[in-house]
Amino acid sequence: MYVETPCVVLDMEKVHRNLQRMADICQRNHCGLRPHTKTHKIPELAKLQIEYGAAGITVAKLSEAEVMADHGITDIFMAYPLIGESRIRRAIALSRRIRLICAADCLESAEAISRLCRAEGAVLELRLEVDTGMHRTGIPYETALQEALRIAALPGVRLQGLFTFRGMMYDGETCLDRRKCGHQEGSLMAALAEEIRKEGIPIQDVSVGSTPTAEFCAEVPGVTEVRPGTYIFQDMMQVNTSACESTLEDVAATVWTQVVSCCKPDVIVVDSGCKSLSTDAAPGKFPYSLRGYGTVAGYPELSLSRLSEEHGMLDLERPCPSIHVGDILRIIPNHICPTVNLYDRVYLLRDHELYGSYEVAARGRNY
Amino acid sequence: MYVETPCVVLDMEKVHRNLQRMADICQRNHCGLRPHTKTHKIPELAKLQIEYGAAGITVAKLSEAEVMADHGITDIFMAYPLIGESRIRRAIALSRRIRLICAADCLESAEAISRLCRAEGAVLELRLEVDTGMHRTGIPYETALQEALRIAALPGVRLQGLFTFRGMMYDGETCLDRRKCGHQEGSLMAALAEEIRKEGIPIQDVSVGSTPTAEFCAEVPGVTEVRPGTYIFQDMMQVNTSACESTLEDVAATVWTQVVSCCKPDVIVVDSGCKSLSTDAAPGKFPYSLRGYGTVAGYPELSLSRLSEEHGMLDLERPCPSIHVGDILRIIPNHICPTVNLYDRVYLLRDHELYGSYEVAARGRNY
Repeated sequence: MYVETPCVVLDMEKVHRNLQRMADICQRNHCGLRPHTKTHKIPELAKLQIEYGAAGITVAKLSEAEVMADHGITDIFMAYPLIGESRIRRAIALSRRIRLICAADCLESAEAISRLCRAEGAVLELRLEVDTGMHRTGIPYETALQEALRIAALPGVRLQGLFTFRGMMYDGETCLDRRKCGHQEGSLMAALAEEIRKEGIPIQDVSVGSTPTAEFCAEVPGVTEVRPGTYIFQDMMQVNTSACESTLEDVAATVWTQVVSCCKPDVIVVDSGCKSLSTDAAPGKFPYSLRGYGTVAGYPELSLSRLSEEHGMLDLERPCPSIHVGDILRIIPNHICPTVNLYDRVYLLRDHELYGSYEVAARGRNY
Repeated sequence: MYVETPCVVLDMEKVHRNLQRMADICQRNHCGLRPHTKTHKIPELAKLQIEYGAAGITVAKLSEAEVMADHGITDIFMAYPLIGESRIRRAIALSRRIRLICAADCLESAEAISRLCRAEGAVLELRLEVDTGMHRTGIPYETALQEALRIAALPGVRLQGLFTFRGMMYDGETCLDRRKCGHQEGSLMAALAEEIRKEGIPIQDVSVGSTPTAEFCAEVPGVTEVRPGTYIFQDMMQVNTSACESTLEDVAATVWTQVVSCCKPDVIVVDSGCKSLSTDAAPGKFPYSLRGYGTVAGYPELSLSRLSEEHGMLDLERPCPSIHVGDILRIIPNHICPTVNLYDRVYLLRDHELYGSYEVAARGRNY
């Protein structure tokens, strides 16, 4: 099977191994697993995650949920505020086909959902998003109890759970001790759920954790679910922070790229730029210690130091006589999730042979 | 017409005005215009550029050329090294349908093209890429004459021209004086072409310039063609360096985004992250003086200071009571080219009304 570069290639043995490892973690801790499929946006991989024990999936945007539902996924949590009349109506329509859990981070947003649900004779399951330090969406932790009580009183919605996305934080600071971070995240959210339950609201799910912290969040009593995404593929951000104890050997997704220019002794140019490798995780980005815009497998001395749109530059400290025009190099992306989102299709590798492909069916579904 | 956010919206009056301005510049200087369509990847807009006097278009990758040819564009320059047997064969096939000009930056790459062209009984038009300071693809300026003579002697290819991409550089340094940069770029390349012609090689085209420098390159005697791309839309990088004298009023492409969270006094969250706005042009990137990951039209005090995949954070110095959950904001992207590449479709605005859309037909065509 021949594929033009640049392309994303998945080593399926590593995919299965990464899925098994997280499944084991969750099973051992009797904790639910609801993988975030924004990492791959591929229904076939979502189904594989469910085969490995996931109760359902997580998505960021409603259009992703719609694609996944169209491909047979029947239990989806959209971990993103449901905003706007048109989207609320789409969510209600989708909730008549599958189990859809939606999210709100304040009373005002929940009221809008409530109004339209009543008008359409529907009841949507809701989770309250709590801000535990990321300072993006989410009601501040301190006011979450009161907001939860108000939302729980609304008709047309059922406050089913709580969730947070916290990254790697401990006591409000970015921290590389994933165990401490995960335990604190889980404990904070489990305690909040208990407080809300004491007020008579039957909070069922406490959903926390991402790839770096999931294994430790899952250990915390009261946490019912973790939502890791990147673990299926891994990438340089995760390797550099040892998420899931991952190493370069665990990275399942690489971008294959071709050398297009070697005519100067101090730079090799490949055919992947920022239209083929995402640039959100830039060199030096704390706390990931990223050296360049991606790492060349097998060439630890090389750094993808500059990208333009379709060019990637490996600036050399000394000439690299083993690399020639036309060679294929494998780039380990810094951040695989927005990288996969640049491709319509990914290719599958087994026993060093390309044997098939998946459509990235929810690529670009950001609405 | 209702469109979900995030979405790219083109103000078509501004598109036409931007096209007219560059057409006037080229006509006044009797210089050819071959717009780089990597900015939009939309055949309808490529055709509009040809209506405005472009002789043909430029693309970066062969798959873009194939899409444009499928939509009726008949004169295409691929300003990128043509590498690899499969791609060379695709290029030969395409050259039997349209006028396709290819590129090489060294003898070795040109020889591979020559071999396959002879085998297939074809002759490909070639341009030699010259590195005039960007330090990516391109033969070093100092050795370009000798390389051109060797390539010109190959059968199966016809060395038709020279090209360079130089950005904004003067005497080897990044420089904001676009006039000086453009004049130097044009003069260097025109002089090189003359040297090659003296050796009996009939170099026809000297193709230079990008949006910031095109108007000055076009003034240089001996320059036959400029290849601006961004000028059709403009963006914050161009506005901040006053390319084409552009101002915020000239920016034709904005990302419409919806406010999804306002529940904290010091941050507003919108539904555009790095899957909706490219991050290659990051805040502080020299020489563009970018404040955030995009500028909010009408709110000069706001800065899109953080992005995650689907969240954009406007961190506030003081509360902004005029913005509410559900509001639509218009973001002027830092770099429009990789931003458009994130969308399947863009929407068209005239007289403040959305009235249609174009498919981004070459989106993701990076191979």
